[in-house]
Amino acid sequence: MRKTSGRVTLPAESGQEQIIKHLIKHWGVDAIRDSDGTRLSQDLLDMGFPVYSTICLVRAEQSWPREHGEDLPQAFLMTPRQTFTGRPLKFELMNDWSTDKYRLNENDDPKLWWEVIDRTTGEVVPGDDWTYADGCVTLTRGQDYHEYTVNFLVMQIWDSTSMYNALTNKWTGEKVMSVDPFKPEVYEHLMHYFDGWLERHPNTSVVRLTTLAFMFMLIRDKRQRCCIRDWCGYCEAVTPAALREFEKVKGYKLRGEDFIQAGRYAHTNIPPTSRMLDWMDFIQQFALRFGKDLVDKIHAAGKKAAMFWGDHWIGAEPFDPKFASMGMDIIIGAAEDGVALRRVSDVPLNVVRELRFYPYFFPDVFKPGANPIEESRKNWMKIRRALLRMPVDRIGWGGYLSLAAKFPDFINHLAGITDEFRAFMDRTGGKEAWTAPIRVGVLNVWGSLRSWMVQTGPIEKFYSGREDVMEFIGTNIAECLAGLPVKVGFISFDEILKDASRLNDFDVIINEGFMGSAWSGGDIWKTPALVAAIRRWVHNGGGFIGIGHPSAAEHEGRVFQLADVLGVDLETGKEIQISEAVSQCEPRHFILADAQQGRSRISDHSYVFSRYEDAAILDNSGKHVHIAAKITSGGRGVYISSLPFDWTNARLLQRAIFWSARKEQEFTKCHSSNPATDLAWYPSAGVYCIVNNTNEQQTTDIYDHAGQWLRNLSLAPNEMVFVENN
Amino acid sequence: MRKTSGRVTLPAESGQEQIIKHLIKHWGVDAIRDSDGTRLSQDLLDMGFPVYSTICLVRAEQSWPREHGEDLPQAFLMTPRQTFTGRPLKFELMNDWSTDKYRLNENDDPKLWWEVIDRTTGEVVPGDDWTYADGCVTLTRGQDYHEYTVNFLVMQIWDSTSMYNALTNKWTGEKVMSVDPFKPEVYEHLMHYFDGWLERHPNTSVVRLTTLAFMFMLIRDKRQRCCIRDWCGYCEAVTPAALREFEKVKGYKLRGEDFIQAGRYAHTNIPPTSRMLDWMDFIQQFALRFGKDLVDKIHAAGKKAAMFWGDHWIGAEPFDPKFASMGMDIIIGAAEDGVALRRVSDVPLNVVRELRFYPYFFPDVFKPGANPIEESRKNWMKIRRALLRMPVDRIGWGGYLSLAAKFPDFINHLAGITDEFRAFMDRTGGKEAWTAPIRVGVLNVWGSLRSWMVQTGPIEKFYSGREDVMEFIGTNIAECLAGLPVKVGFISFDEILKDASRLNDFDVIINEGFMGSAWSGGDIWKTPALVAAIRRWVHNGGGFIGIGHPSAAEHEGRVFQLADVLGVDLETGKEIQISEAVSQCEPRHFILADAQQGRSRISDHSYVFSRYEDAAILDNSGKHVHIAAKITSGGRGVYISSLPFDWTNARLLQRAIFWSARKEQEFTKCHSSNPATDLAWYPSAGVYCIVNNTNEQQTTDIYDHAGQWLRNLSLAPNEMVFVENN
Repeated sequence: MRKTSGRVTLPAESGQEQIIKHLIKHWGVDAIRDSDGTRLSQDLLDMGFPVYSTICLVRAEQSWPREHGEDLPQAFLMTPRQTFTGRPLKFELMNDWSTDKYRLNENDDPKLWWEVIDRTTGEVVPGDDWTYADGCVTLTRGQDYHEYTVNFLVMQIWDSTSMYNALTNKWTGEKVMSVDPFKPEVYEHLMHYFDGWLERHPNTSVVRLTTLAFMFMLIRDKRQRCCIRDWCGYCEAVTPAALREFEKVKGYKLRGEDFIQAGRYAHTNIPPTSRMLDWMDFIQQFALRFGKDLVDKIHAAGKKAAMFWGDHWIGAEPFDPKFASMGMDIIIGAAEDGVALRRVSDVPLNVVRELRFYPYFFPDVFKPGANPIEESRKNWMKIRRALLRMPVDRIGWGGYLSLAAKFPDFINHLAGITDEFRAFMDRTGGKEAWTAPIRVGVLNVWGSLRSWMVQTGPIEKFYSGREDVMEFIGTNIAECLAGLPVKVGFISFDEILKDASRLNDFDVIINEGFMGSAWSGGDIWKTPALVAAIRRWVHNGGGFIGIGHPSAAEHEGRVFQLADVLGVDLETGKEIQISEAVSQCEPRHFILADAQQGRSRISDHSYVFSRYEDAAILDNSGKHVHIAAKITSGGRGVYISSLPFDWTNARLLQRAIFWSARKEQEFTKCHSSNPATDLAWYPSAGVYCIVNNTNEQQTTDIYDHAGQWLRNLSLAPNEMVFVENN
Repeated sequence: MRKTSGRVTLPAESGQEQIIKHLIKHWGVDAIRDSDGTRLSQDLLDMGFPVYSTICLVRAEQSWPREHGEDLPQAFLMTPRQTFTGRPLKFELMNDWSTDKYRLNENDDPKLWWEVIDRTTGEVVPGDDWTYADGCVTLTRGQDYHEYTVNFLVMQIWDSTSMYNALTNKWTGEKVMSVDPFKPEVYEHLMHYFDGWLERHPNTSVVRLTTLAFMFMLIRDKRQRCCIRDWCGYCEAVTPAALREFEKVKGYKLRGEDFIQAGRYAHTNIPPTSRMLDWMDFIQQFALRFGKDLVDKIHAAGKKAAMFWGDHWIGAEPFDPKFASMGMDIIIGAAEDGVALRRVSDVPLNVVRELRFYPYFFPDVFKPGANPIEESRKNWMKIRRALLRMPVDRIGWGGYLSLAAKFPDFINHLAGITDEFRAFMDRTGGKEAWTAPIRVGVLNVWGSLRSWMVQTGPIEKFYSGREDVMEFIGTNIAECLAGLPVKVGFISFDEILKDASRLNDFDVIINEGFMGSAWSGGDIWKTPALVAAIRRWVHNGGGFIGIGHPSAAEHEGRVFQLADVLGVDLETGKEIQISEAVSQCEPRHFILADAQQGRSRISDHSYVFSRYEDAAILDNSGKHVHIAAKITSGGRGVYISSLPFDWTNARLLQRAIFWSARKEQEFTKCHSSNPATDLAWYPSAGVYCIVNNTNEQQTTDIYDHAGQWLRNLSLAPNEMVFVENN
């Protein structure tokens, strides 16, 4: 293959000039960057490449937070429950939390901001019934044997990212503090500091904001353990200053209990209250203004603005229509799989899209005896599969190059990835691949705001993976979808309730998730207008695919409110006296054609049973239904109990989509028969791209865009080949 | 062993006189009975034994039901849901049900009794919006794409037991019809018929009522399949006559929707509404009056009255305090295990207690090549274990003796059981065994009314066992409890809410069941007074054992409302962002001492996690907790995820009870160390009885009533031995 160059950002590092010169050719690097903890020498800056310089403004300057302890980021914490037994009950507020990270906020009046709550009744305790002194709240009057908690405010005295690096990567530098940018004087200070920073970085071509204003939710307990974690959580943007402003803007006051929702930290997997949605909007407005001011300064300095979608991204939601106003030039996302790629490639903005691949060159992975190639190749197989459908512009890595340089095989392996990425972009023209005429809509509470986000349900909690890496176990339809030749969108329940004709934007709707979650939807399924709208749409020809606990809310003798469409329902112990319907088993159904050899699923016990005699049972363990298909009037429904990502399950979902869209006859258009392989067609470039997703040799039959057999193809492990479309 | 005699009831049958004469000696028979479908010849009646004669009065006489079609038992059925799509919607009411069993009730005004319900909203459709004609309800006005059902009344034209025998045992006789005894004229007719029956049975010593007035809930669909089944369900006592009388007595009118509760047939596993409790009381009052009138007649005829606790027992609840007024002399229960024995032995009445063992001598079991001994021995091992704790007076069998006689090994096997039963009664004096000073209370919605009833949760539905036999799979604490040396009672939530001091009747409370069920309790756990009362009682020294989903109701950030006592909570997908507590594993805990070799449990995935650092984790699969123990102030809590019955799990529950009652030091009193064996002490008889519950040889250490080691003992398979207490 002709050696190519470009589209690659290298993490440079002072002292690594020799290897960098080598990699510029070997990887075809055309831009260099610094990382958290690395600096670029003048030698590197003089090489003449575009330079990405990283800054997280809220933690860039350390004098302000040290001098203005009241301007730190804050958070509401909740004490553990304690039982009132007739005697005064003492809550040592900081007892259970990392005192390295948090300091009690005693500046703002506890009686105004804190709440003591009777968790047995849910009622707020009157302020007269408790006192505060010396780090302790004392409940003086309570109800015997009720449990109580205190919601209280803390200052964050150690930036979450700095703390993470200290704990995970053994960084020993000073504990970085971040500031809360909300107050006008802090805001002004940060802008002023940024002006100076821009002046001090004349060689910088791209300012890589990492990220903006507010950290996602990541709370550490007394053992420094990350005990609460929500990458999309808005609970660490809280300060009394922001809450006061919120009251002015929105006309009502939020309480601690809005962030600790009935005893639970409010997070992405729980359907949000309307108050939380107001709060999110409020924070978004602020983050957009903050971001726009920075971008304007960057542009004024003749540089480009990049946002690394990472730590402090709360409020800056690339899928929020408001986001475009910020004027960002480049969006960079960390990517370990196809979902992460689609999260960047599908952002509805006119920007340059760049992926930062894993593993990060950090000591937790690059230690003696490790095999970073394995992780990298596994990631690349998933990323490449999704890339075939929706490309990005650039790729890159981050961290300490000096660490990665000790693994020469890894360096060569990345040269292979960079060459392959460029070859793909050159041959296909970097255009979106052809898709079948099927528009799939993923339906949940969040809609497009949380495009390409994954939830895996309770199983996630019981999985012991690497805390810092999103390893998805359990049902992962997003990853399955990421590489399918269909159009994928996201839609919320509210959008349907406001305008049911929005359903007509889609041929197939997928509702997936655990009962009660924001993804499945929870009690919104008791809304007659919602159920009737979807049912009408199905009767008129729509396809509805339910995975896990679709349309689940106990109401009028049903758990799945669309059991009539799905054919099945969930047994929760309330109908064990009532037998299941007698249905036909159809193990040779179209949907299963590539899954005969068995498929992965989470458990043999789905507790889902057939409700309708005309539901076809495609896969089951005894009476536990795993896949069902039902034709309802004009439309079709499919139920799947769980769908972990693998090549077979992805193909199964593809077949379920085609079947429910009544497009079985188009299934072989632009098709590769072996599920371990994928084929994509680029009409304007006149080329098919076929990939082998596995580490083994594969053979496959490929079909052209008319659905005609083209030929049999043999692919080396991990191979990508192009076939001209004559 | 000296040949003994007595305490055994034989199912006699004309034509079997020879074998009967043999069995009288071989089994030590001292009473004979007829069965459904068998008759006693004069020869048999002349043998001079007490004779049990079976009668189910409501189906004894066939002319009345055939001449008075309006006096049949009825039931509310619900059609399947149908979707309204703008056109009139037709419900063919009988389409889905057995027309052999049911006939539509067109006598009583449909508009008065039936209901068309919008299942999407839960609202009742106005009578003007539907019409009835020719077996069809037509909905003329509805809401588009809402689902609708019709609740309607049917007459039962085939008695459930008769139908069961036709389907299962291929009986080919006439289809028996039963009558509803509620109307005064029917009642009078039945009493008159019964007078004649008594006159026609001069040789009968015991009238075996099988049972009284109303069948339990057992609905058959168009395939004759039993699709709804609830042995304790009150939904087949319904008739317009009874509903009219109910309105007079209770002051309000019930609707079909009281029996089809929000689209679900109301049954024992769902917490009852107060209206359903009123209905149960109303039916009980009737059944008691009916029963008392029969018993009075029986006594007047110089005979004894026995109630076989079987088919038509609804309303006649032996654990209902009202029951005693009926004056029954003998209670007979079918018994396949220890729970069934305790259901009879623990009835709070001064009666003779008799068990009818399985297998019933019916062709479904006694067919060529079958091995009825296996089922019988398995049952006897469980029954004997419970018998050791709480004896009954008599045992017996039922069905066709002619069938059993073809299995001579089985006949000999029963001789062994009868001898062993008599030996046990003779040596122990037939007294209750010594128990440890621990009073265990099983807490659920029903309390003592449903003593020794088992629910196994959703797993029950997905089990494919014999429809006619209660084979318990899944958690079965009742069977575990049935053979433990502790006092067992049952208590309802309402009893605690009325008088919290009722908790002091117990040392240990067990709450077991699936979330939302009548057994776990459902939303009643959101009641502060309930939670506070139990918490107070635990703090004051009580022991609380939770199994499955104890105290479960989602409220204020908890699922298990007594998580503080249990140490653990259930993850429902709403706290997956929140980590579990860091707890100590204690695999050598007192509770586990007999379970080192592993124990049976339903699933490796409990989805239960540690909430409290001071919860000790005794058994787990990764982060899934299976057993936890926690000390809370003065009391103790134990969590167990599932507890199928086996000898090891029974011993584990025993240890959990002793530990939570803080009586570990008394554990070896009257103890046999090998969990496959049991020891019971009879102080007044001065004897220990030790049994080997298995088909293998066992050795064990036995301990006396002071907890002192007595000796090592070797037991043959299934052996029972007695050791004098000198």
